[in-house]
Amino acid sequence: MILHVQKKANIAALQDFYRAYSLEEKDHYVLITPSAIKEVDESHKKFVIDSFPMESDIQLANRKYITSTRKIEFNEDLCIGGDTNNTLMITGPCSVESEEQIDTVAQFCVAQGIKVLRAGCYKPRTSPYTFQGLGHKGLILLAKMRDKYGLKIITEVKDATHVDDVIEFTDIIQIGAKAMYDHGILRACSKIQKPIVLKRGFGSTLQEFVQSAEFILSGGNNNVALCERGIRTYETKTRFTLDLCGVAYLKEHTNLPIILDPSHAMGYAYGVPDLTRACVAMGIDGLLIETHPNPKEAKSDASQQLNFEEFIALKKSLDKVASAVGRKIV
Amino acid sequence: MILHVQKKANIAALQDFYRAYSLEEKDHYVLITPSAIKEVDESHKKFVIDSFPMESDIQLANRKYITSTRKIEFNEDLCIGGDTNNTLMITGPCSVESEEQIDTVAQFCVAQGIKVLRAGCYKPRTSPYTFQGLGHKGLILLAKMRDKYGLKIITEVKDATHVDDVIEFTDIIQIGAKAMYDHGILRACSKIQKPIVLKRGFGSTLQEFVQSAEFILSGGNNNVALCERGIRTYETKTRFTLDLCGVAYLKEHTNLPIILDPSHAMGYAYGVPDLTRACVAMGIDGLLIETHPNPKEAKSDASQQLNFEEFIALKKSLDKVASAVGRKIV
Amino acid sequence: MILHVQKKANIAALQDFYRAYSLEEKDHYVLITPSAIKEVDESHKKFVIDSFPMESDIQLANRKYITSTRKIEFNEDLCIGGDTNNTLMITGPCSVESEEQIDTVAQFCVAQGIKVLRAGCYKPRTSPYTFQGLGHKGLILLAKMRDKYGLKIITEVKDATHVDDVIEFTDIIQIGAKAMYDHGILRACSKIQKPIVLKRGFGSTLQEFVQSAEFILSGGNNNVALCERGIRTYETKTRFTLDLCGVAYLKEHTNLPIILDPSHAMGYAYGVPDLTRACVAMGIDGLLIETHPNPKEAKSDASQQLNFEEFIALKKSLDKVASAVGRKIV
Amino acid sequence: MILHVQKKANIAALQDFYRAYSLEEKDHYVLITPSAIKEVDESHKKFVIDSFPMESDIQLANRKYITSTRKIEFNEDLCIGGDTNNTLMITGPCSVESEEQIDTVAQFCVAQGIKVLRAGCYKPRTSPYTFQGLGHKGLILLAKMRDKYGLKIITEVKDATHVDDVIEFTDIIQIGAKAMYDHGILRACSKIQKPIVLKRGFGSTLQEFVQSAEFILSGGNNNVALCERGIRTYETKTRFTLDLCGVAYLKEHTNLPIILDPSHAMGYAYGVPDLTRACVAMGIDGLLIETHPNPKEAKSDASQQLNFEEFIALKKSLDKVASAVGRKIV
Repeated sequence: MILHVQKKANIAALQDFYRAYSLEEKDHYVLITPSAIKEVDESHKKFVIDSFPMESDIQLANRKYITSTRKIEFNEDLCIGGDTNNTLMITGPCSVESEEQIDTVAQFCVAQGIKVLRAGCYKPRTSPYTFQGLGHKGLILLAKMRDKYGLKIITEVKDATHVDDVIEFTDIIQIGAKAMYDHGILRACSKIQKPIVLKRGFGSTLQEFVQSAEFILSGGNNNVALCERGIRTYETKTRFTLDLCGVAYLKEHTNLPIILDPSHAMGYAYGVPDLTRACVAMGIDGLLIETHPNPKEAKSDASQQLNFEEFIALKKSLDKVASAVGRKIV
Repeated sequence: MILHVQKKANIAALQDFYRAYSLEEKDHYVLITPSAIKEVDESHKKFVIDSFPMESDIQLANRKYITSTRKIEFNEDLCIGGDTNNTLMITGPCSVESEEQIDTVAQFCVAQGIKVLRAGCYKPRTSPYTFQGLGHKGLILLAKMRDKYGLKIITEVKDATHVDDVIEFTDIIQIGAKAMYDHGILRACSKIQKPIVLKRGFGSTLQEFVQSAEFILSGGNNNVALCERGIRTYETKTRFTLDLCGVAYLKEHTNLPIILDPSHAMGYAYGVPDLTRACVAMGIDGLLIETHPNPKEAKSDASQQLNFEEFIALKKSLDKVASAVGRKIV
Repeated sequence: MILHVQKKANIAALQDFYRAYSLEEKDHYVLITPSAIKEVDESHKKFVIDSFPMESDIQLANRKYITSTRKIEFNEDLCIGGDTNNTLMITGPCSVESEEQIDTVAQFCVAQGIKVLRAGCYKPRTSPYTFQGLGHKGLILLAKMRDKYGLKIITEVKDATHVDDVIEFTDIIQIGAKAMYDHGILRACSKIQKPIVLKRGFGSTLQEFVQSAEFILSGGNNNVALCERGIRTYETKTRFTLDLCGVAYLKEHTNLPIILDPSHAMGYAYGVPDLTRACVAMGIDGLLIETHPNPKEAKSDASQQLNFEEFIALKKSLDKVASAVGRKIV
Repeated sequence: MILHVQKKANIAALQDFYRAYSLEEKDHYVLITPSAIKEVDESHKKFVIDSFPMESDIQLANRKYITSTRKIEFNEDLCIGGDTNNTLMITGPCSVESEEQIDTVAQFCVAQGIKVLRAGCYKPRTSPYTFQGLGHKGLILLAKMRDKYGLKIITEVKDATHVDDVIEFTDIIQIGAKAMYDHGILRACSKIQKPIVLKRGFGSTLQEFVQSAEFILSGGNNNVALCERGIRTYETKTRFTLDLCGVAYLKEHTNLPIILDPSHAMGYAYGVPDLTRACVAMGIDGLLIETHPNPKEAKSDASQQLNFEEFIALKKSLDKVASAVGRKIV
């Protein structure tokens, strides 16, 4: 249950009484109790401005609490959610490989009107015997691109040992699918105000996914976007299965912006354009699309990255689809 | 391997030699051997016009064999596949419930410019203690709607005991997801020329799905469309998970038209419009959308059927999305 | 809800009133209503001997209705379930390939004290271009083995077109995993008294699995055993995933004997012995194990069949495990 | 490929040449290259004692490299793997809840001859609004139990922020299913010699599971056991699906001891005894079974923990099953 409580209440005592989280807003406190609690104690009623009983621990993210999509501001001119109807295009290579490579992509972004550059520094690879990313050196290169080209920078955190570094160097923090349950990361991200893109674990339910977002929201950071990137199913002809039914569920039941990553879901460049158009037609808030100057030589995820020519053709087609559903690619 | 063989060859001997299927075309025979066979015997080479070695038993349906989408004609003016860029809208209730109900839907179809009416007669319900459909009586009612309104009729076969009845009464035969492997049905459907809509089993791989279509193609019926309708995954907030990555695979690797059924995948009416727009943006050949005059009183699948008002709003939005990707809803 | 109703009641009227199934027993009728019905109408209470409200459409198979495992008699000396503590060993090759092959296996069964011979005649293969079984000719060979060696015979039905043949020729009817929802087959099997081994579809839930058994039970055949044979998951290093958690559920909640098929679940002979011992330690009622005189030359499922030497070693070890859990291999 | 290289070789140069990991053993270096490398350069052959080309990045854990199960020593008298035929019983509550609770369980362990006590301190709960464990205070209580009763202590790491604490306080480190890919944790565990129990992620393949173990092995810690604890499938009647087919695969293809956790897989106490007997019959190296003095009042996982009476009955039955397969519960 979420309670809006007057400022004059003893919030510490209430928090203790209900084993609850509290957030301070300008005019009131927000108290979030376990969802099993459905009733306010008689003695506390005088302090309660408003109450929102919840069926599950999807609470702050629930569309029954805040009934429209939350707005995230990247800067004054770059927002998603709220009443913007924007679909943000985020693109870049799977990994930062070298200054030359990332600079080429950054220039391409500028030329294409893309405002957010993505690239991995810490690669959550499953084998120890493959490329693990440039790490801290990659962060420095990304920051350089920001300074040089005015792009916003996003990279992925893979474990809690480098979360502070990523928070320091980037504008947007991406929590990787394999780290969705990582409380060390979630806690660190809840204490800042930078936007967080939380990826769904490929074996995680929608309920668990949104509950991971609740860890961030209940810690005080409202700038969380949910990123569906494909779940693991029995089908192996494609890398994962993009769960657009799940996206329809999230749009109906939560108030968080939704970003889709068809590149990782598909795993093969040939399917990315059709899938991306499908994503845009769903009316979502953002896209993560992998592009690389020379996909065949990429050090990771070679098969799923678009080359520049393919990306340009795709982007052109997206504008039309977005327009057909009352949206705009930014 | 597929071989095109001269008419003067002893086709029966070849069929025996290669343990192969054969089809007769105007100018040549088509011989389909197990895919493990990659070489033509020296003595037969003189009869072979063309040969297509295959990596798996996706053969006649393979885009390496026929390199564009096969065309299916429902009548002169109603085709999908080929160079048509048509996306066929098929709609109607989950089940035929009464003459009044199906007549109301049929009138609605006519008013909306819909040309194909769907409704179940034999319901593949999982419990013996729930509504099992009107059976043969339902078929008669559907045939009546065809005669009265000039609509094409499609209904689902659930087991081989009524396949002949369905073939006799309907224009298009839908093979249900639970019957995808049913050789009795596949064999019967391979011997006719009516269009077949083959639904993917919800636990079936793409490979198995297309191989079921091969049973129909290799028996001599080329009019097969593949219908993705959601696969079963660990996610239970939605009924199934619509596999659009799989659709991207099918478009790339097979030559069969693709029809999507977002209603069954989602299981909830609220998600159907967004998903349907996503399907259309994929550039597919047809849609199955469930509509009912009064979904709340439907005898089956009550939660996922659109009411008429919702359907009208959806259809309007689809025309725009279709146009954005160079297609037309028919 | 299941009702036991006095013989003097107008059973047809009750059946109509409750949209119910009825079965006639010596002393009373058994009426099975949809599970949503929880109350007996006041006017009928005088005829009702006993009532069993149910939470779902697992009704006749529910352990809340019949509280111990139902007994199935293959003949006077060969029973499972009830108070027998027997674990029935059923073995044989994947397919009948020739008279010589099946005779060799039959002799092996006799030598090993095995009483039930299994072998497929109609193979539910997913590709049309591979071996489809000997069909009717296979049934005749199996019947010959029964006559020659006194073995009970079991084979699999794959679609409704040959269910009557299988019923006529075999002692036990196996309903294949791909045919679990086939109402034509379920109906035919519900009208006889021969034992039925119902295999779980590899994409089917436990609820659907038991509900398929309800189709047979509610039609009047109580001799149904449930066979778990592996479900399809994202793991591909093994053919399927044997669901022993599901077996624990079935033992707790249903009253039907349980037979396990580790051969199909694993797909590789190397894992079959360990898995079979695990199955026996679960305290189940039967086993299906594939054996072949020469697995490498088998026309189907070559990789998962044990050779005779492997089978002998396995069987010896099973007697000890069975004894450790108070059971006996028969 | 794994290479055994003479001590006189320039190992740093080789490591660089092959982008390889190296470990120092008494008589030689072990060099592990990416598995794609299959050939030793001509100029290096004189230093290579032995070479083991590998098909995938399952290398140090591969049974083709070390052909029997690795041995893990907890102390002189308590070993698993190697030629011990021991199956180690690890038990305790889901969470440390209070000193009284954990002391009660510790006394119970002593009385039952159990040598390893498990209990969670950092709970990887999916909702922020439920009990999150006692954290550091729990570690202190566990250490107290070790000192008081001579038990070995195991607890679970959930993210990299507390891995050093857990390493300091416990004898065995359990890496939680949700942390299987956490490189911060894997790296820390690779630098110590304490035994590691690595749990399989519930959405992780066997390949990824063993590759996570490779991170620890290649860092220099050979004491890794693999723990299967149920994977996520479409079946929801049980909490997870215990993958014993996967266990058969791991036994055949890897050299790491295997520990099974049927409690988490099943999620319901009623199924735990049958499943545990099945696990023991598989011939595995250890068991994690949850017990609680009063499961109904447990603060987490209430439904799946055995009470003491149930545990005693189970343990008695396990000795017989273990003996039937040539093993001993320790």
